[in-house]
This record gives sequence, structure tokens and C-alpha cells, in this order.
Amino acid sequence: MGDDVSAVAGSERLARAALSFLAEPGEPALGALLKSCRPREILGAVLSGKHPRAALPAVGGVPGLERAFGRWRARASRIPSPARLDAWERRGIRLACPGDPEWPTQLDVLGDARPLVLWLQGGADLRFACLRSVSVVGARASTGYGEHVATELAATLAERGWAVVSGGAYGIDSCAHRGALGAGGITVAVLASGLGYGYPKGHHELFAAVAGNGVVVSEWPPDRAPTRPGFLVRNRVIAALSCGTVVVEAALRSGALSTARHARDLCRPLMAVPGPVTSTQSAGCHAIIREWGAVCVTGAQDVIENVSPSGDGLGPPRRGPAAPRDGLDPVTRAVLEAVPSRGGSGPAAIAVTAGADLNTAIRCLGALAAAGFVERCVRGWRIRKDA
Amino acid sequence: MGDDVSAVAGSERLARAALSFLAEPGEPALGALLKSCRPREILGAVLSGKHPRAALPAVGGVPGLERAFGRWRARASRIPSPARLDAWERRGIRLACPGDPEWPTQLDVLGDARPLVLWLQGGADLRFACLRSVSVVGARASTGYGEHVATELAATLAERGWAVVSGGAYGIDSCAHRGALGAGGITVAVLASGLGYGYPKGHHELFAAVAGNGVVVSEWPPDRAPTRPGFLVRNRVIAALSCGTVVVEAALRSGALSTARHARDLCRPLMAVPGPVTSTQSAGCHAIIREWGAVCVTGAQDVIENVSPSGDGLGPPRRGPAAPRDGLDPVTRAVLEAVPSRGGSGPAAIAVTAGADLNTAIRCLGALAAAGFVERCVRGWRIRKDA
Repeated sequence: MGDDVSAVAGSERLARAALSFLAEPGEPALGALLKSCRPREILGAVLSGKHPRAALPAVGGVPGLERAFGRWRARASRIPSPARLDAWERRGIRLACPGDPEWPTQLDVLGDARPLVLWLQGGADLRFACLRSVSVVGARASTGYGEHVATELAATLAERGWAVVSGGAYGIDSCAHRGALGAGGITVAVLASGLGYGYPKGHHELFAAVAGNGVVVSEWPPDRAPTRPGFLVRNRVIAALSCGTVVVEAALRSGALSTARHARDLCRPLMAVPGPVTSTQSAGCHAIIREWGAVCVTGAQDVIENVSPSGDGLGPPRRGPAAPRDGLDPVTRAVLEAVPSRGGSGPAAIAVTAGADLNTAIRCLGALAAAGFVERCVRGWRIRKDA
Repeated sequence: MGDDVSAVAGSERLARAALSFLAEPGEPALGALLKSCRPREILGAVLSGKHPRAALPAVGGVPGLERAFGRWRARASRIPSPARLDAWERRGIRLACPGDPEWPTQLDVLGDARPLVLWLQGGADLRFACLRSVSVVGARASTGYGEHVATELAATLAERGWAVVSGGAYGIDSCAHRGALGAGGITVAVLASGLGYGYPKGHHELFAAVAGNGVVVSEWPPDRAPTRPGFLVRNRVIAALSCGTVVVEAALRSGALSTARHARDLCRPLMAVPGPVTSTQSAGCHAIIREWGAVCVTGAQDVIENVSPSGDGLGPPRRGPAAPRDGLDPVTRAVLEAVPSRGGSGPAAIAVTAGADLNTAIRCLGALAAAGFVERCVRGWRIRKDA
């Protein structure tokens, strides 16, 4: 184990990755430690076998730290070898850490509960995709009404240039992804299992489709199975990634209301779709409208008005890209320069022209589309006319 | 005409009655005049044929007064003879004026737009009935969903001791009345036509049923047909009579939203029942929840919490009468004393014991029931056990 550990601990990024195999997402002790220690120091202290006070003398009192060290040490053998990390990388699973270009800085509002790392899979750039995104969440036990509304809502948001963020569950989550994908939009699926595990299994095709046009996200290491509390922990990420959260259908005790609570606590716009008062699957929506001040929304127009109060996104799609061309990294700029302004080119041709590999080109195209520079067309990709 | 006029102008009440045949409800000029003149003075001035400034020298500038006088004078022949008023009285149509015991003083919040008079028909006392009342309004073009919800809501409100106020239209209004009546409750139907005209004609049986257990109300003289603007003018009375207004179903341009606007402007609790976002008949409800801050209510419990924020009306029905026994007028007290505390008596027997005529006894019994003193039973009426 020793060699492997020293290899992954060789950088702060790899120390974060290693720690993500030891600690559970959202563990308060780790969040508290990260306020005063760097990931490498923490990893070193954990693996040193010393008492936390001896290993990290500069740290003040962190409640439960000794027990946490015990748990983390018991899991030390889970830290994967570099070869294992490479294997995941070859499967298209990449790591994003705070400070990385793709890291969504809006997660910083989570404070101590900010994810340690995110594992990502898919052609879109997570940060770009979430610049203009809405979380569309709801019950697994959805009704035909809720499924219809979620699908329509996500499709219209996608048509208006908004990415959709949701979980990976049956019911409303899957309708949100399918509606957005069907309209050619970008979706972000935040899972409570590792990306290699992909829970629920019945959604493997859906997750592949999300990865094709958007990105699948998890805080858990790729091989991790989901746990019951993990779903609630994950919900804070769904709420924090997007510009606002819409609950489409939820019973009074639905897990979707935990996402809503996070959105409310983060002061992000919180919205709910009403439904028949005779439907228990709308009771949670009505309760948060009445009691939490969630805005009653009836369609994409209402949602866009709420997430962009300045009028951005109202009326026809915003003209011009969301970010200045100068702000693009060199690879993305090379890909942008390889996209034709008339006709259209496939991603392979663009990759060759840009001097990038295919996966990189696809990811950059997703980011450029989310930012309003390029658009899909019959023949592949082209520069947006209003860009 | 002269004799008839002097007969009805013989008292302020009759002057108000006479003026109600000349001016339209809610006419601003009349409201402005009533701030500085008594009804007899105004009636005298109108019928004198003089210029308003000569007839009412003490009145300052009232916009449109000369034209209003012209309109009112042109209608002078409409003032009915005392015999005609008596004929309506024999049909059970009675007059209520500000200052009368049955006048609902909550209408005073309407200021200049307070009704000049109200014409009433039915066994309940309007003022008592409205002490604990909720307006349940909505579209004529209701859906099965809205009709179900309105009926259930009104029935539960009735069971919990709340009177229901509504208009007389097809759709939600009629469901509200039928739901309350079916549960043995009291309802108040506020019409935009005269009580003798009773629009819509298809609701004559419903209005008779409302009059049997509640009261039918109109600002318009008994023989008057409805006019299109009259419905909107009437809506302020529906909003002002009750402790709060619930919109069950309404399209975006529904007249029910005018009642809602009055409730909002009067700072009375305004509530709306959500429905499917795919239903145009719920779009008005969702709009006022989102834009006017109407409270999203899903049933009678939510409504009662909103109209009685102090907790009154929550849980089992309030114990004991709403008004002290000492506050009753002598006739009502005599009727109360004639009601047995065991078994039960019919209204005719109670009338004889109380020394009142049958109509008076029925009206007093309605008032006493609304105030929580008496209740219906198999054998007629009896004292409530908790009174």
C-alpha cells in the first residue's frame, strides 16, 4: 500500500482523490480540517497512524476527529493504485478538484460541505454547462402528469439555452434528462453512487446519453455503491450547481424536498410546479409554495424569469456568448477556431483541425455550446450566427 | 309620482331604498355625496329638479355630479310605490341598510363604494352568517376537478362551522353553495341581478335552497336584470362580506380574479387552489399565487388557518356561541328562549312561543344557528349542548 499512497499523495489533487476514498462526502470533520490544512497534510496525518493531535498539532478542536481518523484509517486499503485511476481515466472518468478550470465555483457556497472532489464523465464542461442551468427534481413515484410536465419543462429550458441538472432516479429525474436531451440540450446528472457503478442500473443507457451531450457527476469514487444517506448528501450538490431549483412533483416526505431545502438555505431561487390538490405527489410542491415561499411556476417561462431576474433569458434566446472569447483556455480556443461558420463539421474533423484528440474536442464543443459560441446543425457543429 | 316619492322619502331607510332605484351600485358620485349629505337630502335634491349646486349648496365639487343627477332624474319613475315594496316584503324580500341590526358592518371598509342598501331573502341573518364566512369563487367554465374541489371545500368549511359566500353563477359558485348546503351549512349568494329576477334563471331552485338555509343578497332592486359591468361591481361585496376569499378555478381573464383583486385590495386573506399547470382553468389561480401573493391552499384546513390566524377554527369546531347572549335584540332573545334544550321544536311552534311571526322566527333561528346558540335536529331546532 505504501508505494501507492505516496504516488497519489504526490500532489494536492491526488491527495484529494485519495481522501475521497477514505471520507464520506459531506463529513463535517473533513470539512473542518480543510479550513486549516491542505489535503496532503491531512492524508499524511491519516496514514501516519498517529493520534490526530500529534499528527496535526496546529489544528484546534475538531469534534469527532479521533473517531473520523479511525474510520478513514480502516479504509486506507481502498485507495486505488495509479493504474486503477488510469483505467478509469481511459473509461472517460475524469477528476475535478477545486481550482481546476472545470470546477464549478458556485459550489463554494457550500462552505465546509463543499465536495472534496467531483468525478465526471461526459462531453460537456461542467462549469460552462452550469453557468446557465436549472435543477429539475421530483419524486421517483411520479404520475403521468408530473412526467409530462417535467419532460416539457426540461425540453423548453433546453431550447432556450438552459442546461438541466437533476439526479439519476426513475420518475421526474429521468424525465427531466430525457426532455432536455430530446431537445438537443445539455443535462447534468448528479449521482449518489460512483460513476462506474451507475445506480440505478436500469439507467445505464440514460447515463450514457447524458454523458454524450452533457456530464454525469458524482462525489463518490467510481466503484462505490449508493447508500441511503448518500442521496440526501448528494442533494446539496444538485441545489448548489444550478441557478435555481424546480420541484415538479413530490409527496410530503419526498427526498426531492431535501434538494428544495438546500436551495432555500443557499438562497437560490426555489420553485415548485403546482398540481391537483387531489394528488399526493403534488402535496410536497404545494407545501413548499405555502410554507417556504417557493415560487409557483407553471412552465419554462416562469422558471427563466425566476432564475434570471434581470431579464436575461427572457424572450428570444440571449444573443451572443456568455463568456468572452479571451477567457477561453488555449485548447478550447483552438477548437473554436476549427469550427466553421457556414455549413458545419463533425467533431472528428474539428479535432484534427484543432490539433486535439477527439474526446477533448467533444468536451470543448460542449463547453462552447453551453457558452453560446457554437451550435449543433445537421452537418455537425457551426459557429452561432449571433456569437 | 309625487305622493309615492314623499312616502318612501319619509325616512332615511326609505330614501336609501328609493335612491337604489336611481343610482347604480358603486357609482362614485353617490358615494361622494353620501360623505356629506344624508340620503333624504340627496333624494330631495334629485327630485327637486334643481341644478345640483342649487339643490345641495353645501356640497363641494363632486366630479360628474351634474350628469349623475341627469341620469338619476331620468329614472325617477322607477321608484316603486309602497304597495310594490310591500308585495316584495310578502315574497320574503327584505331591505337592509347601514345601521340596521342585520347590516354587515364589515362592508364599511368599502368606503365610498359601500352598498347603499342590500336586498335580502332567506332564513339566515346576513350579519351573523358572515361573522365566520369564507368566499369560495371561481370560473363558470369549471372542470370536473374544480367542481370536485369546490364542493368538498365548501362542505368541509360548513362542517367546521364556517358559512360560504359566493356568487350565483354556474360552475364553481354553484358547487360551493351545493357543497355547503349538502353538509347542512349556511351559504350566502350575492347576485348581480335583483332578487325577484334571480339570474341565472336555471338557478331558481338553487337560490330557493340558499334562501332556505342561508341568505340571497343583492344591491340591485328586486326587479332588475343583470348587466355585464354589474358582475364586476358585485364582486367587491363578495370580497368584503367574508373573512377571506378562495379562488378555486379561474382562467387568466376570469371574473373571479376581480373578486380576488378586491380581497387583496381590502387586505383580506386571499387564497387560491392550485391545479394542473396543463389546465387553463387553473392558470388564474397560479398567476395570483405567484404574482399577488395569494396563499396556495389545498383544502379547508389550510383555508381556516388563513382566515383565523389566531388558531380560532382549528381543530374541532369552536365551543360556545360567537356573540354574547346579552347582545341579542329582544325579538331574537325571545326566539332563543323559545327553543327547547332537549328534543326539538319546529319553527312554527317556536314562533308561537316567542310571540313572533313565522318569518321572523325563521330568520332569528338562522342567526342564532350561525352564532352557535342553536342547532338543527331531527325534530326541528334545539339549544346547542356547548352553547
